[in-house]
Amino acid sequence: MDLEFISKLTKKNNSKIVLLVMDGIGGLPKDSNGLTELEKAHTRNLDMLATKSLCGLQIPVANAITPGSGPGHLGVFGYNPIKYQVGRGVLAALGINFDLKPGDVAARGNFCTVDGQGLVTDRRAGRISSEKNKELCKLLCEKIKLRNTEVFVETVKEHRFLLVLRGDDLSGELKDTDPQEIGKKPLEPRSFSGKEHKTIGLVKDFVNQAGNILKDEKPANMVLLRGFSKKPNWPIFPETFGLKSAAIAAYPMYRGLAKLVGMDVLDTGETIKDEFTTLEKNWKKYDFFFVHIKKTDSYGEDGNFNNKVSIIEEVDKEIPRLMDLDPDVIIVTGDHSTPSVMKYHSWHPVPVMIYSKCCRPDNVKHFGERECITGGLGPRFPAEDLIPLALANAKRLEKFGA
Amino acid sequence: MDLEFISKLTKKNNSKIVLLVMDGIGGLPKDSNGLTELEKAHTRNLDMLATKSLCGLQIPVANAITPGSGPGHLGVFGYNPIKYQVGRGVLAALGINFDLKPGDVAARGNFCTVDGQGLVTDRRAGRISSEKNKELCKLLCEKIKLRNTEVFVETVKEHRFLLVLRGDDLSGELKDTDPQEIGKKPLEPRSFSGKEHKTIGLVKDFVNQAGNILKDEKPANMVLLRGFSKKPNWPIFPETFGLKSAAIAAYPMYRGLAKLVGMDVLDTGETIKDEFTTLEKNWKKYDFFFVHIKKTDSYGEDGNFNNKVSIIEEVDKEIPRLMDLDPDVIIVTGDHSTPSVMKYHSWHPVPVMIYSKCCRPDNVKHFGERECITGGLGPRFPAEDLIPLALANAKRLEKFGA
Repeated sequence: MDLEFISKLTKKNNSKIVLLVMDGIGGLPKDSNGLTELEKAHTRNLDMLATKSLCGLQIPVANAITPGSGPGHLGVFGYNPIKYQVGRGVLAALGINFDLKPGDVAARGNFCTVDGQGLVTDRRAGRISSEKNKELCKLLCEKIKLRNTEVFVETVKEHRFLLVLRGDDLSGELKDTDPQEIGKKPLEPRSFSGKEHKTIGLVKDFVNQAGNILKDEKPANMVLLRGFSKKPNWPIFPETFGLKSAAIAAYPMYRGLAKLVGMDVLDTGETIKDEFTTLEKNWKKYDFFFVHIKKTDSYGEDGNFNNKVSIIEEVDKEIPRLMDLDPDVIIVTGDHSTPSVMKYHSWHPVPVMIYSKCCRPDNVKHFGERECITGGLGPRFPAEDLIPLALANAKRLEKFGA
Repeated sequence: MDLEFISKLTKKNNSKIVLLVMDGIGGLPKDSNGLTELEKAHTRNLDMLATKSLCGLQIPVANAITPGSGPGHLGVFGYNPIKYQVGRGVLAALGINFDLKPGDVAARGNFCTVDGQGLVTDRRAGRISSEKNKELCKLLCEKIKLRNTEVFVETVKEHRFLLVLRGDDLSGELKDTDPQEIGKKPLEPRSFSGKEHKTIGLVKDFVNQAGNILKDEKPANMVLLRGFSKKPNWPIFPETFGLKSAAIAAYPMYRGLAKLVGMDVLDTGETIKDEFTTLEKNWKKYDFFFVHIKKTDSYGEDGNFNNKVSIIEEVDKEIPRLMDLDPDVIIVTGDHSTPSVMKYHSWHPVPVMIYSKCCRPDNVKHFGERECITGGLGPRFPAEDLIPLALANAKRLEKFGA
């Protein structure tokens, strides 16, 4: 839905909306006639909620598209993920909770190995340890000096790091220096337009200095850079939807994504129980809460069917605490499917329910993939329409037209 | 789906995809409480496939739109049929398997009757026989000479013919000369823009010479021309989707449509069995096969309910041969509905199923219109998303975004 259109219809009241995202919730049966993780799980509370809710399956990005975490969440936040694309550099910054400022240019870096002629022999430098990575980042941070520009080099994981340049008038419109194959030299920094820009010179200078500093290191003696990008200048979630908004997420990437669209990010503990406690403590302060559960996805990616089932059951046990707060609207869904039989994100539609005191219930009695097909939201509801629908159910949208 | 967007996400592997199009498959019950052709047919194999598949109904062009064969097929090929429109002249060339070259201008012609003042009295010249048509086309071909331009005049059927001009720098942007009503003169050739172009002069010359050659013929003493067009310069199916692609179709129109989007067209026999034999023989050579069954549509257009049922059953008998090849993904659908009670193409959604080893099955046990409403694809799945979904199921699409 067009954000400007919906924004004009919003109005304020005292209602409370909760968006509960179980990351990678959608699944597949282990055997062709079996049950999915969600169908297998004993979810008395979610099922009770489903009987009072409008159910269905949602499409985070588009039919057939497997969403990364960024696009998957932007979809359920109401942002069309094809229109609102985040650069890889910005995502890397979000992932380690780096506080990106407007105007900063971020890039995803790899430590790599080059031979005597400067040809790349390993794009990932043998996947060096995160400890080694930290050591090298510290070295680069200390030694590299760029003209009128601050340089941040931060460890992500293994061979991966984040580069951030901070200065006046920098451009994020730069091509990757990663040649994407071995036996080639790292590519020279250049712009997409082909035009000169001072940022090109700064990146060249960074790469040259890094090469000199690392030249005697083994195996990580060079750097490759990808996904140059700036923090996007998008409509802000709380302003667009008229909701004072908070995010409760234990993992940095999701805290980062929430911050990117302008939500307040609340301090919380590591466990699911902790997250619900944070919700209770902050209940009076916000109109909207995004609560993120990570482990459904993690166990899906590990291929651990049973543990994914257990996490769903663990979330189910906390639902009464949520109901006790008496929210006006609850959305329960995921940012994508992560079937444990595939060990990866997938394109399959994601189960969703929307509860409110004035939604028109359907015939779904159990919150599971196959039953949701028959729900009132249909089997392919666009994720980006969920927040507008929550606003409607919270009576936060004016009538359109006279 | 945007072809450029999906194309960027494609990757290669060894999977095989089959698109089985039963032309005009969708139908209607003969009596208000009866069964459709597909529901009536005994389709043990298609039903078994449906239980392992994601089912639904698809919309080839848009809600309410009755597709011609061109748009219907372009939809299931993944091309938005409203964005990718084929001219009537080009379609006529495809329909008779005329090998249109880039730069050729094609038009659909009618032999017509004009009176002493040159006013049209019958736009179809009393629907002359195809034999008479052939005689007249031969005459025009032999006698008409245009400056630096080759002229082809080919019989289509009854009063219909194909005109192709071949030369340098020709334009397809010409208006019809058919006045669309009797009592008027054929319209002068002119461009859409109003600008002069040498093609206008060539067409005027063609029409004048044709009028002279035909002046003593009865009733076909003049020609009308429509749908001037050139072979479109579209994204190529095999490149766009990363699939080495072959078409198996007995009828020229469908061979032409497949060729238009860049598929290889395989030699095949007339029968359904022949088509499956061609599939078996070429199985190792391609990633993607489009198999076209014509007679479901032909019997629908004839109003022959029972024979349409029989053809569906005949296709069903060949399904085990398809399954023996162990394809990774199968789509079974049509290019539109042709209910035999209507004797014509219709706007009704078209039954569809997509089978793969990692699709999430729904509750559909029988491949029929009413049961497909409850399938996981939903009752109005856009046909243009079927190929992307097949790619996802074949694990030929990268994740979108990090």
